[in-house]
Amino acid sequence: MAPEIPKPMRFENGTLWILDQRQLPGREDWLECRRAEEVVHAIKVLAVRGAPAIGLAAAYGVVLAAYNGQDLDAAAETLKKARPTAVNLSSVLEEMVAWARAGHRDGTQLLRWTERLLARYEASERAIQTLGSSLVAGGSRVLTHCHTGSLATGAYGTALGILTWAARDRNLEVWVDETRPLWQGARLTAWELGRHGIAYRIVTDGAAGSLLQRGLVDLCLVGADRVAANGDVANKIGTYTLAVLASRHRVPFYVAAPFSTVDMDCPSGADVPIEQRSEEEVLRPYGLDLAPPGARAYNPAFDVTPHELITGIVTDRGLVQAPYDQQLAATAKKGIAS
Amino acid sequence: MAPEIPKPMRFENGTLWILDQRQLPGREDWLECRRAEEVVHAIKVLAVRGAPAIGLAAAYGVVLAAYNGQDLDAAAETLKKARPTAVNLSSVLEEMVAWARAGHRDGTQLLRWTERLLARYEASERAIQTLGSSLVAGGSRVLTHCHTGSLATGAYGTALGILTWAARDRNLEVWVDETRPLWQGARLTAWELGRHGIAYRIVTDGAAGSLLQRGLVDLCLVGADRVAANGDVANKIGTYTLAVLASRHRVPFYVAAPFSTVDMDCPSGADVPIEQRSEEEVLRPYGLDLAPPGARAYNPAFDVTPHELITGIVTDRGLVQAPYDQQLAATAKKGIAS
Repeated sequence: MAPEIPKPMRFENGTLWILDQRQLPGREDWLECRRAEEVVHAIKVLAVRGAPAIGLAAAYGVVLAAYNGQDLDAAAETLKKARPTAVNLSSVLEEMVAWARAGHRDGTQLLRWTERLLARYEASERAIQTLGSSLVAGGSRVLTHCHTGSLATGAYGTALGILTWAARDRNLEVWVDETRPLWQGARLTAWELGRHGIAYRIVTDGAAGSLLQRGLVDLCLVGADRVAANGDVANKIGTYTLAVLASRHRVPFYVAAPFSTVDMDCPSGADVPIEQRSEEEVLRPYGLDLAPPGARAYNPAFDVTPHELITGIVTDRGLVQAPYDQQLAATAKKGIAS
Repeated sequence: MAPEIPKPMRFENGTLWILDQRQLPGREDWLECRRAEEVVHAIKVLAVRGAPAIGLAAAYGVVLAAYNGQDLDAAAETLKKARPTAVNLSSVLEEMVAWARAGHRDGTQLLRWTERLLARYEASERAIQTLGSSLVAGGSRVLTHCHTGSLATGAYGTALGILTWAARDRNLEVWVDETRPLWQGARLTAWELGRHGIAYRIVTDGAAGSLLQRGLVDLCLVGADRVAANGDVANKIGTYTLAVLASRHRVPFYVAAPFSTVDMDCPSGADVPIEQRSEEEVLRPYGLDLAPPGARAYNPAFDVTPHELITGIVTDRGLVQAPYDQQLAATAKKGIAS
């Protein structure tokens, strides 16, 4: 029997409950959010993370603002600034605000909009799962980075969603990059794979090169926080390194993301704002004093993988491949497939 | 004034005191070793680490065995097996056992041999420092991996020794790979750089690619645990990835190691035994329960960088470059320069 799909949030009686992913897999704490500001905080501290999931949380944030009689435009603006790199956050909020301005400023109306957003996510991610799983042969050893499961999206997941879907009828082995500094791989991807009964091994981010070099990886599969119009992909720090290694060893490198992650207004990866996060995440994880007093760190949360290193982008509107600029432009015009 | 050079061990009145590097930089604990077995343990648990330093510690281990009237050959054999990858450990022990068999089985004689070994280290590492620093232009931004300072060697250090030497008369900025799973970069390299007043920033291992991609690195400089006869280099896990990235971005990638790290009996990197370490190092650093219960990890301690990715190897017998097989063979014949 398929395991229950874990969800990153739920909305009940005017309250958004956000699963605090910082505590996983050790503890299952739910944060109670009754105001948009609390959602902003949850997004900033990464209690909820993953590009689609923060878009969804932000939409619920606007619902809360409406329930509380707050200014919706101001609330959306604050939510939009919570994290700069993922495009889903701003695109969801822009679409929602436009709809609100068209006469749907009531909390119940906005909640219904958000529920439809979630339904769109579900359809979109199911499309990604089914298309993507055709790329994963039985017996494949797949390397993934960070976490792209249902907790990162609100529905079924993107890259990890493909793996859980494929694993229903074939054997897989997954190499899980631990993904410093926040260990989303070791904590969340491992947890989700375990629930699905999929065999995996966690490796340090520095070990992935050795795996690829020794022929132990058949496929790399990652998510995306923003895809530029030329196909460059901004994703969790470390993704670029994997793509370079995969290219050197001629291992297919696929990205999975809903088409809403494509930002046609962003010409290339150089135009994606890269969030710089606290030095503490590197220097003092879980309060450990790793580094000497006064040590400094540099902590970009994302990097950019140039499109020429990407074998294909699995979207809910089909597989996008080189020439990316043309295929993305054509696919953008097609509209939503689902 | 130059800072005092930190040392990984000292021998006093029949006792080897080993600085427990697992506790650094937080605490300065010294392990008291009065028997060879205690030295084996200190090497296995990485209280002392770094290819030259474990060779030196093992030599003191043989001295302790002699003081205790133990069988020297058996003690040397046990010490040799403490860690498989670094060649210094076995080569030091083989040389020492041969000397003992030639009639120098007395503890005091063996101690004198070990003191001469340390003097050779000092001469060798000074040669590496002076030669290597000619490769480091003022204002360089240097990326290094793991820890290769005086605590890793017993004398002045190799790759990091070059940086501390160069920094006496020019400005440098150092990018320090944190080096999971044991954080030798964040803990030890940062500590040593801080003592020398050299500017640095710690980054996660996954962030190095982004630094190189954005042109923020002028030079990569790392150590070696074993150099094969064809110039392939076994070094801390993650080194291969850096070399691939440096090659892609045309950034010079240098290795610094005493010539004693070259194993002319090892034809290529494929012949270097790679130590597999405990899954716990990845899954439960400092006792943190990062991963879910039952999670598995894969933890190779080293990887192999093929010679074609290496700009040059800075040794105490000069700079070795392609064709590595020929230059290494010729240099091996020359004998010790110092």
